[in-house]
Amino acid sequence: MKIVERTAEMQAWSRARRREGLTIGFVPTMGYLHDGHLELMRLARAKADVTVASIFVNPTQFAPNEDFARYPRDLARDAAMAESVGVDIVFHPADAAEIYPAGFQTSIAVSEVSQPLCGVSRPTHFGGVATVCAKLFHIAMPHFAVFGEKDYQQLLVIERMVADLNMDLEIVHGPTVREADGLAMSSRNKHLTPDQRRQAPALMRSLRRARDLAAGGERDRDKLLGAVRAVLAEAPLGRIDYVEMRELPNLSPAPARPAGECLLALAVFFGATRLIDNHVLQFTGTA
Amino acid sequence: MKIVERTAEMQAWSRARRREGLTIGFVPTMGYLHDGHLELMRLARAKADVTVASIFVNPTQFAPNEDFARYPRDLARDAAMAESVGVDIVFHPADAAEIYPAGFQTSIAVSEVSQPLCGVSRPTHFGGVATVCAKLFHIAMPHFAVFGEKDYQQLLVIERMVADLNMDLEIVHGPTVREADGLAMSSRNKHLTPDQRRQAPALMRSLRRARDLAAGGERDRDKLLGAVRAVLAEAPLGRIDYVEMRELPNLSPAPARPAGECLLALAVFFGATRLIDNHVLQFTGTA
Repeated sequence: MKIVERTAEMQAWSRARRREGLTIGFVPTMGYLHDGHLELMRLARAKADVTVASIFVNPTQFAPNEDFARYPRDLARDAAMAESVGVDIVFHPADAAEIYPAGFQTSIAVSEVSQPLCGVSRPTHFGGVATVCAKLFHIAMPHFAVFGEKDYQQLLVIERMVADLNMDLEIVHGPTVREADGLAMSSRNKHLTPDQRRQAPALMRSLRRARDLAAGGERDRDKLLGAVRAVLAEAPLGRIDYVEMRELPNLSPAPARPAGECLLALAVFFGATRLIDNHVLQFTGTA
Repeated sequence: MKIVERTAEMQAWSRARRREGLTIGFVPTMGYLHDGHLELMRLARAKADVTVASIFVNPTQFAPNEDFARYPRDLARDAAMAESVGVDIVFHPADAAEIYPAGFQTSIAVSEVSQPLCGVSRPTHFGGVATVCAKLFHIAMPHFAVFGEKDYQQLLVIERMVADLNMDLEIVHGPTVREADGLAMSSRNKHLTPDQRRQAPALMRSLRRARDLAAGGERDRDKLLGAVRAVLAEAPLGRIDYVEMRELPNLSPAPARPAGECLLALAVFFGATRLIDNHVLQFTGTA
């Protein structure tokens, strides 16, 4: 496996693979890899001839009050993990200036799907994500890119951008990978204290409760959301940022009796650490 | 020559040409072609294996008070002209929904170079231009695209976007083509009354005056701008929108004694018709 630090070198490599007729799969990450990332890479590898992963802690998707500085970084560990699942190239920009050189002034906004849920407390986040992903897509030139469903709103923002800008690549969904007790894997989990860590699986349990109620025929939005909140109350160290149900794919508010495909999404602070999780509910038949 | 109306068909065509190893040149236009556009197409054709031109009057780069509705359109005439200079494909979207389908919500902003000059009176213009060009680049998949120097600020916005987003194409400058009396060709010239048309060449004469003064050693910014305004006063039907000198490539205000490469740019209203023109001044030696 090769580590590429320069944009021009990465583009030259991908251009050459394309000329050879090879399919390029791509997994963009902020590093500090866990099995959730590796699952996305395995998925890419199974579907592509060659697999590129990027590792870049993107400063523009953090607000000044957020955790950019303390976001965990460990390139040697990440490179070994990526290699272990068959990644061919890790694109790891030499420094932030390789991505944002002097004079950089272009930004991409995906207006509607960026606004609710995480967009409320992180109003500049998805613009930063969209812009860096557009750049990474033009740098790695993949035929498809894999994004995890754990960050479901991010996935929707990227899918919308790719469709709206006619970008010539496919966006592939990867599953949320969980710890044995149900906590969704996240690079931020390492910031949890032992007590917080013990309570954090309430997020997944709350989503499962709603899933089971819906499977049993419950169609009342507020009852489902109430059930989620009741389970989250079992984690008193958690402070709810939001618990919401939104229609897919545009994240408009779900009606009182939802129909079709809805995203049940939540964000909970444990101290300064903000965890997110979600579940897609499929309401079938008449409301 | 073929006219393609669907995005997916255009992409499939370009993908196939790329697989064949052919170089694709691209000239995006709003149609109502004149010899200025044809010159860009000739340039593309000379440099590329296959040449694509697009014709799309892009609604998002017009403000509500601007001339979108009355912007001239004539596809049959445009297609014949494009064919006459060897264009292989005209991409002419079937309708605006082909480019902006329901749910469209993505926009690109190029902040600094979009703000001065035309950006003052047209604050939403360059965002619309950048977004549609990003789309067209992803649809036509060219190796290079040609833009005319008549719209110099637009050229700078596109160059900046392409560099900032790492888009894998080259931006080529095409020369401003002029009528015999010096008026820069523009699809909007047809809106001029005979009296306005007689006075409009003052734009080019004013730029030539400044060019000649600078060639003779004049380095005082305000004297050069004053000379431009003095010539423009010879066209009393014209109402100046702006006359400015800005440094290239970032369009920062030129100092009192400019050095290096500067853009001398102007916009003048004749009735409701707004004409623009510019000249690049090269100040060499010490200021």
